[in-house]
Amino acid sequence: MSVTELISSARSGSQRAVGKLLSLVEDPERREEVLAALDQVPARVVGITGPPGAGKSTTVAVLVGAYRARGMRVAVLAVDPSSPYSGGALLGDRIRMAEHINDPDVLIRSVATRGHLGGLAAVVPAAIRLLAALAYDLIVIETVGVGQSEIEIAAVANPTVVILNPGAGDAVQAAKAGLLEVADLLVVNKADREGAEQTVRDLRQESHVPILTLVASKGTGVPELIDAIEAHQRADTPERRTARARAQILSLAQSRLRTDPDLALLAAAVAEGSDDPYSAAAKLIGRNGDGPA
Amino acid sequence: MSVTELISSARSGSQRAVGKLLSLVEDPERREEVLAALDQVPARVVGITGPPGAGKSTTVAVLVGAYRARGMRVAVLAVDPSSPYSGGALLGDRIRMAEHINDPDVLIRSVATRGHLGGLAAVVPAAIRLLAALAYDLIVIETVGVGQSEIEIAAVANPTVVILNPGAGDAVQAAKAGLLEVADLLVVNKADREGAEQTVRDLRQESHVPILTLVASKGTGVPELIDAIEAHQRADTPERRTARARAQILSLAQSRLRTDPDLALLAAAVAEGSDDPYSAAAKLIGRNGDGPA
Repeated sequence: MSVTELISSARSGSQRAVGKLLSLVEDPERREEVLAALDQVPARVVGITGPPGAGKSTTVAVLVGAYRARGMRVAVLAVDPSSPYSGGALLGDRIRMAEHINDPDVLIRSVATRGHLGGLAAVVPAAIRLLAALAYDLIVIETVGVGQSEIEIAAVANPTVVILNPGAGDAVQAAKAGLLEVADLLVVNKADREGAEQTVRDLRQESHVPILTLVASKGTGVPELIDAIEAHQRADTPERRTARARAQILSLAQSRLRTDPDLALLAAAVAEGSDDPYSAAAKLIGRNGDGPA
Repeated sequence: MSVTELISSARSGSQRAVGKLLSLVEDPERREEVLAALDQVPARVVGITGPPGAGKSTTVAVLVGAYRARGMRVAVLAVDPSSPYSGGALLGDRIRMAEHINDPDVLIRSVATRGHLGGLAAVVPAAIRLLAALAYDLIVIETVGVGQSEIEIAAVANPTVVILNPGAGDAVQAAKAGLLEVADLLVVNKADREGAEQTVRDLRQESHVPILTLVASKGTGVPELIDAIEAHQRADTPERRTARARAQILSLAQSRLRTDPDLALLAAAVAEGSDDPYSAAAKLIGRNGDGPA
């Protein structure tokens, strides 16, 4: 089938055609051909991220259920940068999504990035354009990894919802990965566990975004989460977009510096006393020690 | 009195002379004169840092007591970059230190940085050299601020001890400020409070350094903390120094990027769509978007 035929077939309800088109936009050599054949349709994108085990998939499943109850068509893109190319297969552990698998108005798909940095950044916006053009009313992007991929998702999602569990572990991990900076909403899931209220209070000291509690496995707090997502979408302003952009730029810069091959040499020079940490930091960010440009 | 006379007087036990010399090394125009008159004596420096309210002063007080019990002469430098020049007065809230104030072998002094960035970095190493030359066996540096000053302390202290309280709040704040990266020892103080064991478990997921519990106000855990400090000092290696240097460089680079005046312009460009976060991050770190150098 040609791209035009696939699009037509996808619009008639063929999930197989949608899957084929998603595979084409994952391919850098075919992507442009698909995008050129699509109308520009505004996309509504919600990002769900957080540390492993926080309950992201369960949360996505209940959100899909709630949006389906409103008659919306929903696409779920599950991003796992650490996994090899999945060929569009469902992730094996997505048991919570089982109830939606046979729903023709729910598309569930894992996105491959083929391992190269920037792959996700190129694929996801194209997949979003495709799904919006194919009349999916809401696109949920769930990231399974930690760090880089979440920041990339924050660049396209509005809001970015960060799911955490009670206690210090998830919150510290989120802070270290820069997730608290890209979060538009913070959700403490498994909030029936001990310490959830304290975690909410602790997070409130560290973030100015709304903080919600959720027991996704029981559906508790889901209407409030959906209200908060919609309130955020309605209230978006240039100032908010600028604040999100600032957080994304900082997080990306941070992860680039961390993986800079010069860092080991600079650290060795500081450790043996032939350089000081200030001049080394200035060299790392390419400014030769004369203060911020 | 001349510098030589002050040094002689300080060596005879005059705390007044030590205070005068510390004031001189705080003065960029007199510093070199003092340093030139001193012998090079290896310094033993312990850094105590952590979020406000974690119990740093109480911990310092019990550490001083324990080291004094071993007959060591101890100097405490309290660094508060946010306060105006203190003229060498004791900080008013240092009630816990009261028992040591009349001990001629304990020096307690707040360090002024006169507000300019890098002031602390220049003053503290000079003060350390002075105190080591004046036969203080241990120099404890306590930082009252958050962020930049702790990273500067980590550059001179071995070990850097980060004091936290049970719960997510302090741990998240420490992670955000980059303190988890510069910590050589993590101490959960007020460990008789609920959730302390969970906090230890959570921190263990995020850090590879030893994690101790303490109830500083009761003295519980102090011998173990002193053992851990000494074990760390004995076990220092070039690899550890390199790892500390790496963390310091990254934290300094991070705080420079955060305060870069270009960031607001870059964020606005990304928010309005005239730039993307990846190229903006590359510009922020001065590399023109062609990947890590």
